[in-house]
Amino acid sequence: MRLKAVPATLAVAVLTLSLSATVCADDVQNLKITRPAYSNDLVINLQRTRQEPIQSIEPAKVTDPAKVELGKQLFFDPRLSRSGFISCNSCHNLSMGGSDNLVTSIGDRWRQGAIRVPTVFNASLNAAQSRDGRAQTLAEQTGGSIASPMEMNSTPQAAENMLNTIPGYRDQFKQVYQLDRIGIAQITDALAAFESTLVTPNSRFDQWLRGNDKAITANERAGYELFKIAGCITCHSGPAANSSGYQQIDVVRTYPVRNPVIGSAGATGDQNDRMMFKVPTLRNVELTYPYFHDGAAKTLPDAVQIMGQIQLGRNFTDDENVKIVAFLKTLTGNLPSFRLPQLPLSGDNTPRPNPFAPPASSASLLQQP
Amino acid sequence: MRLKAVPATLAVAVLTLSLSATVCADDVQNLKITRPAYSNDLVINLQRTRQEPIQSIEPAKVTDPAKVELGKQLFFDPRLSRSGFISCNSCHNLSMGGSDNLVTSIGDRWRQGAIRVPTVFNASLNAAQSRDGRAQTLAEQTGGSIASPMEMNSTPQAAENMLNTIPGYRDQFKQVYQLDRIGIAQITDALAAFESTLVTPNSRFDQWLRGNDKAITANERAGYELFKIAGCITCHSGPAANSSGYQQIDVVRTYPVRNPVIGSAGATGDQNDRMMFKVPTLRNVELTYPYFHDGAAKTLPDAVQIMGQIQLGRNFTDDENVKIVAFLKTLTGNLPSFRLPQLPLSGDNTPRPNPFAPPASSASLLQQP
Repeated sequence: MRLKAVPATLAVAVLTLSLSATVCADDVQNLKITRPAYSNDLVINLQRTRQEPIQSIEPAKVTDPAKVELGKQLFFDPRLSRSGFISCNSCHNLSMGGSDNLVTSIGDRWRQGAIRVPTVFNASLNAAQSRDGRAQTLAEQTGGSIASPMEMNSTPQAAENMLNTIPGYRDQFKQVYQLDRIGIAQITDALAAFESTLVTPNSRFDQWLRGNDKAITANERAGYELFKIAGCITCHSGPAANSSGYQQIDVVRTYPVRNPVIGSAGATGDQNDRMMFKVPTLRNVELTYPYFHDGAAKTLPDAVQIMGQIQLGRNFTDDENVKIVAFLKTLTGNLPSFRLPQLPLSGDNTPRPNPFAPPASSASLLQQP
Repeated sequence: MRLKAVPATLAVAVLTLSLSATVCADDVQNLKITRPAYSNDLVINLQRTRQEPIQSIEPAKVTDPAKVELGKQLFFDPRLSRSGFISCNSCHNLSMGGSDNLVTSIGDRWRQGAIRVPTVFNASLNAAQSRDGRAQTLAEQTGGSIASPMEMNSTPQAAENMLNTIPGYRDQFKQVYQLDRIGIAQITDALAAFESTLVTPNSRFDQWLRGNDKAITANERAGYELFKIAGCITCHSGPAANSSGYQQIDVVRTYPVRNPVIGSAGATGDQNDRMMFKVPTLRNVELTYPYFHDGAAKTLPDAVQIMGQIQLGRNFTDDENVKIVAFLKTLTGNLPSFRLPQLPLSGDNTPRPNPFAPPASSASLLQQP
């Protein structure tokens, strides 16, 4: 069993080397934005930038503010769901770490989702979206959630038809996309543009990476060193601390299966992908309880302990657990801050939702166990 | 049948006279805040302030910003519900006119509420809360919604126990109320304090009231005059255009009953109160479709036409309907604007919600038709 973990440890060294150059290049770019060029501060900070496998997050670069503003309204708009009650923000609650803090999601008609909702914060830094990687891009993910019977349970056509009757949306889409008719491609593109701004830079850990020695405590620093030595860093590196992309959740010990989700195998149909999941970001991880794809770990100390056991074959002592948890809490960054949007009014001809309409075909529901 | 409407028309004159003094006093207070004392502008504006049965809305006066900020967090916090999914903002959506734009509300476990959710905007100006006046104060209303099985379906005890385990809330309640333990009285008081700030001053109609002749068009002005002459003003006067407090919904013609709600009789048990409802505010009425206690009127033109028929015995012509609707849209004010709050983190010992737990007693549900 230990054999499985060894290549992972080796990978850390390779990863650390290959990432170093990127850290410097990115941080120079960042510093150019926030500091005057050629200042002494710039030189000092460049010299002191730490080269670590976890890199700092860059602030969002907004190139099309009108598109982002439009996407923000769509993100908060429950009319994208069949019921008119569930918006993106219902499950990816931007007041609660970009998720819902529930074990599994609640969808249309109170249907129970199969997975713990991943956070939308820093999702633009993921290798893929969804727990099983089903959606490659943010735009794909948003389209999938609008149409999924377990989530918003609308259709691309219904979403398009609805938005095209709302003058306030038509004007904005026209301005941003130069199109007279709103299509699902523009809807998901605008949503993705807004979601791409939901990054959380300037955590205490990032401040430490940039050379501020006092940004984290000795205890938190010790937790980070242990995090690297123990091998957590193998999967949790890069800006979002998830750069390995995918990993099986039972590297050393079998994960006790509690729900029907089987990882990427559910998307690819390949049994080799069974229990393979997208590695979740550790950014703001103290906000995104409960943990794992099935929400089985109630607290962060629990999650750390279980990860040590099933991924690394290591039983952290209480002291080690406390240190790693302390380090993880330094990854909480500046959360997105913006004014709650006001949504454009429905027109008199906008279809009115009927949340309590019977399902189109109740047979499929009745046949469920 | 016409007899019933006559006293209403007489009441307009009385109401207009009795309100006039209040208009002046209130507007002086408002002007003192926004303009330098003794300026020429002040004198001119005082002279030009119109004395009308609908009065302008005052901006919110925040005396305890920490309490309001706390109440805002609670308003957006789904942990006040049994499921951890439904917050005050789910039904009183501050992005959608302070309501949900649905025919009837959606509550815990997707239960169908009996009534169209009233807007929380300007609710502090209501004579009472709830459609049937069941709750006298905002604090009572918030407590009722937290505990109602058809709404958030929690209990005062569960809400208290949950909040008392959250350090970020304990600190704020301690600061605002000087109490070590959070109680339901403080929870509902903070919610009410936030809701009291959700007023919408400075509508175009209010600007016209303050003397700006160009703030409304001739067509809108004609609609307002018709609104007064036809008798709508009998119930819809005062700052929130709802100052008569209560009214039967079938003054002239019987209202076709479509749902089990019977008005204030449901709260008082007195059959004389049957189909007696709190008069809804007309402030921002273009945002709060669909209309009436049962959401039966889909659009504002429909609502105006039906009100004319069943309350005034009058069938408005198309031109009259257009004018009144145009006037009503001038009542849309400055909507509350604030940053989306970040909610305090649950502690490791905070009870985790279980939205899919079977009801405590499923027997009562099974016996339903």
